[in-house]
Amino acid sequence: MKIPDSIQGAWKYAERHKQKFISELKEVVSQPSISAQNVGLKECAELVRLKMSNLGIKTKLMPVSGAPDVVYGELDSSNDARTLVIYNHYDVQPAEPLSEWKSDPFKPEIRNGRIFGRGVGDDKGELVARFNAIESLLNKEGAIKPNLKWIVEGEEEVGSPHLHSFIQRNKSFLKGDGCLWEEGDRSALGTTEIELGVKGLLYVEFRVKVGEKDQHSMYGPIAPNPAWRLVNLLKTIKDENNRILIRGFNDRIAKPTPQERKFLEQNEFSTEKLRKALQIDYLLKGKDDVETVTKLLYSPSANIAGFGSGYLGQGAKTIVPKDAFVKMDFRLVERMRADDILAKLKRHLKIHGFDDVELIVHSKEDPAKTPVDSYIARTMINCVVMAEGKSPNVWPTMAGTGPLSLFTKTLELPTAMGLGVNYAGAGFHAPNEHIVLDYYHRGIKQLICLFSTF
Amino acid sequence: MKIPDSIQGAWKYAERHKQKFISELKEVVSQPSISAQNVGLKECAELVRLKMSNLGIKTKLMPVSGAPDVVYGELDSSNDARTLVIYNHYDVQPAEPLSEWKSDPFKPEIRNGRIFGRGVGDDKGELVARFNAIESLLNKEGAIKPNLKWIVEGEEEVGSPHLHSFIQRNKSFLKGDGCLWEEGDRSALGTTEIELGVKGLLYVEFRVKVGEKDQHSMYGPIAPNPAWRLVNLLKTIKDENNRILIRGFNDRIAKPTPQERKFLEQNEFSTEKLRKALQIDYLLKGKDDVETVTKLLYSPSANIAGFGSGYLGQGAKTIVPKDAFVKMDFRLVERMRADDILAKLKRHLKIHGFDDVELIVHSKEDPAKTPVDSYIARTMINCVVMAEGKSPNVWPTMAGTGPLSLFTKTLELPTAMGLGVNYAGAGFHAPNEHIVLDYYHRGIKQLICLFSTF
Repeated sequence: MKIPDSIQGAWKYAERHKQKFISELKEVVSQPSISAQNVGLKECAELVRLKMSNLGIKTKLMPVSGAPDVVYGELDSSNDARTLVIYNHYDVQPAEPLSEWKSDPFKPEIRNGRIFGRGVGDDKGELVARFNAIESLLNKEGAIKPNLKWIVEGEEEVGSPHLHSFIQRNKSFLKGDGCLWEEGDRSALGTTEIELGVKGLLYVEFRVKVGEKDQHSMYGPIAPNPAWRLVNLLKTIKDENNRILIRGFNDRIAKPTPQERKFLEQNEFSTEKLRKALQIDYLLKGKDDVETVTKLLYSPSANIAGFGSGYLGQGAKTIVPKDAFVKMDFRLVERMRADDILAKLKRHLKIHGFDDVELIVHSKEDPAKTPVDSYIARTMINCVVMAEGKSPNVWPTMAGTGPLSLFTKTLELPTAMGLGVNYAGAGFHAPNEHIVLDYYHRGIKQLICLFSTF
Repeated sequence: MKIPDSIQGAWKYAERHKQKFISELKEVVSQPSISAQNVGLKECAELVRLKMSNLGIKTKLMPVSGAPDVVYGELDSSNDARTLVIYNHYDVQPAEPLSEWKSDPFKPEIRNGRIFGRGVGDDKGELVARFNAIESLLNKEGAIKPNLKWIVEGEEEVGSPHLHSFIQRNKSFLKGDGCLWEEGDRSALGTTEIELGVKGLLYVEFRVKVGEKDQHSMYGPIAPNPAWRLVNLLKTIKDENNRILIRGFNDRIAKPTPQERKFLEQNEFSTEKLRKALQIDYLLKGKDDVETVTKLLYSPSANIAGFGSGYLGQGAKTIVPKDAFVKMDFRLVERMRADDILAKLKRHLKIHGFDDVELIVHSKEDPAKTPVDSYIARTMINCVVMAEGKSPNVWPTMAGTGPLSLFTKTLELPTAMGLGVNYAGAGFHAPNEHIVLDYYHRGIKQLICLFSTF
């Protein structure tokens, strides 16, 4: 593949400024910004704004009632290039347990070709690498300058409680041609992974309470048992062959398109490793990798995440429990809608006589997906091939969930993730979070390509 | 009903010695004997032995390996009267929480016609009242003296772990014509309640473990879920109409005999009160008391006492749990056998493909029942009518469970409970345990009658 001179030039700039870029990353990581503990958020927002501003990006701090400011940046390069919307966050997880860190989480340290620190992966590494890529492009005569709209929020690690309303409120000026999501990704083997969608989620809790206290179980023959009640409810939801029985639930399940199937088949992927990680060696044995990953990515699920009732200690206690609850998460695939599934679940409970059971909705998120042949997907794939000399894995969707539909649906932006600096072993949210320096610099190369060819 | 002079005479003796009897009760209650804390057991055993011995009963302390001594007493009155085996225990529950007692649990105090102290009801009140009844009889010329064999153990409150082996080992000399169980009983309204049986119990736990740690629930479509596995197991055990589906489980369920039915119908009993106590007002509405109590006493049950899996805290956590367990107690009615039901359960698990699920047996107890027309039952009923001027409630069985089959089957003794000093409000095992003084003295009258007419 022919790599344009303008990209080559910016890559060289990046090559010459490796030390500077790492210093900048260290500087941002050294500023704690722990949203769960309300530590350093204001200072970090200002630092991020300043770094953006120094690049020539027009910035402002956008206040959000009851939340840390959103750093907003806009780069209008006055050319015909498409506009890319970028999403990042400047907050990090708490560093606890501190005793498990080998170096101070807020004094980044390099060991064995890796840089360690809280947020060095999630998400400050990505943010600073994007700064570095833009700096490299803006300093290279002849390179195509990007048009950018950049949102950097400060409460992603506490669940982005204000992101929905922020996007809704500001959607008039958040127009663009595509969106780069927060994170890059590489497999443990170093292969870049591009993800083009997320599953939806409906997380509910069923609660049954029959009294103020547990009863002696000698009353079993006449006392109502809330745990049995929920077992009876659950058995109407899914049968022993894992078939979900809620009417209409399975109406909108899409199979992989031929194009998607092609990517699933050519991706480097090992279900053997997944099986080992999940300790489900006995499951799916003999089936091939593509079938397994297709099932993982294209099936909805009705998962019991928690079931609590009665006596949970050692040994025996003879009681009829006073109450019981079940926590369930339904993962939703393309074309399913959380509100629609919730309505169907409510109708199901009514049909089966469980409408007296308390239903609590903990969260709802729609699935989101950007086509594998979308412009942003094709550009990303090309940039990985240019920067790495090797094709990425391309996943039409992840198995997990995120607020991606805000961007794909509310803002109507084809949205993709994958180019950048992280890898599967980075240890997000855990002690000794780190990234690999080599991947950091290669990530900048990928991003230079994306920003100049989008 | 004509009351024999000999009984009248002993009753008068008891009437004249009320103060003495209460003093003796206080003396025994003042000696702590807490089996769970190994406090005062030796001293209490010796005190009980001495009191028995002072009555003219031949006594010995029988050592039990790893347990407190059993106090054994024998009274051979050299007459043709039947021999009554008596069971009591001299240990008590811990008194904690001490702050909730209105008086020192080991310094019995009389307030409002009640005597308060740990063990005053369970079981020292019964034990001393029996001493008092025997003293009254032995001091009355012309009264029929009883033939007795008396077992007083010291670890009932920790589950009588050595009682089975003790009875087995000593069954050759524990022969008799009937057995008086540990406790008297009165309803909250003051009606004496005679109980002639207990239910059996099979308490099991099912455990499924799929891995060493919880998994992210995005793996729901391919990861095994231990909670669902147990839901699927449970639904093979009982259907939504409470029908137990284990093959052969329902083979041996007996209905009330016409005689039993007569007692069930004439007993003073209010399901309304039971409903209120159990807070199951919405249940069984419109059905009559006899139907409810028949269901309670004559139905086996398959109760979920505990179900634990996954996330049990507030809100949502998206995991596939690493393990799950269910604790179940099956209450067994007349003619069912715990070992037989366990075998049927194991076969059931195998038939339905759940033989890989771990099965833990926490306890097994057979049901036991003495006929309502047995000699001991008829004698007890007569004695209540004589002492109270009113028929007792007669229950062919209790809803609860106890090691009664040791006496009815191993020792082949018709066994009954109910005559004595306790009542429904006594607060066994709780702070401010007490008995009503009037019931104490009336209980002694009942016992005098039983001991002299059995």
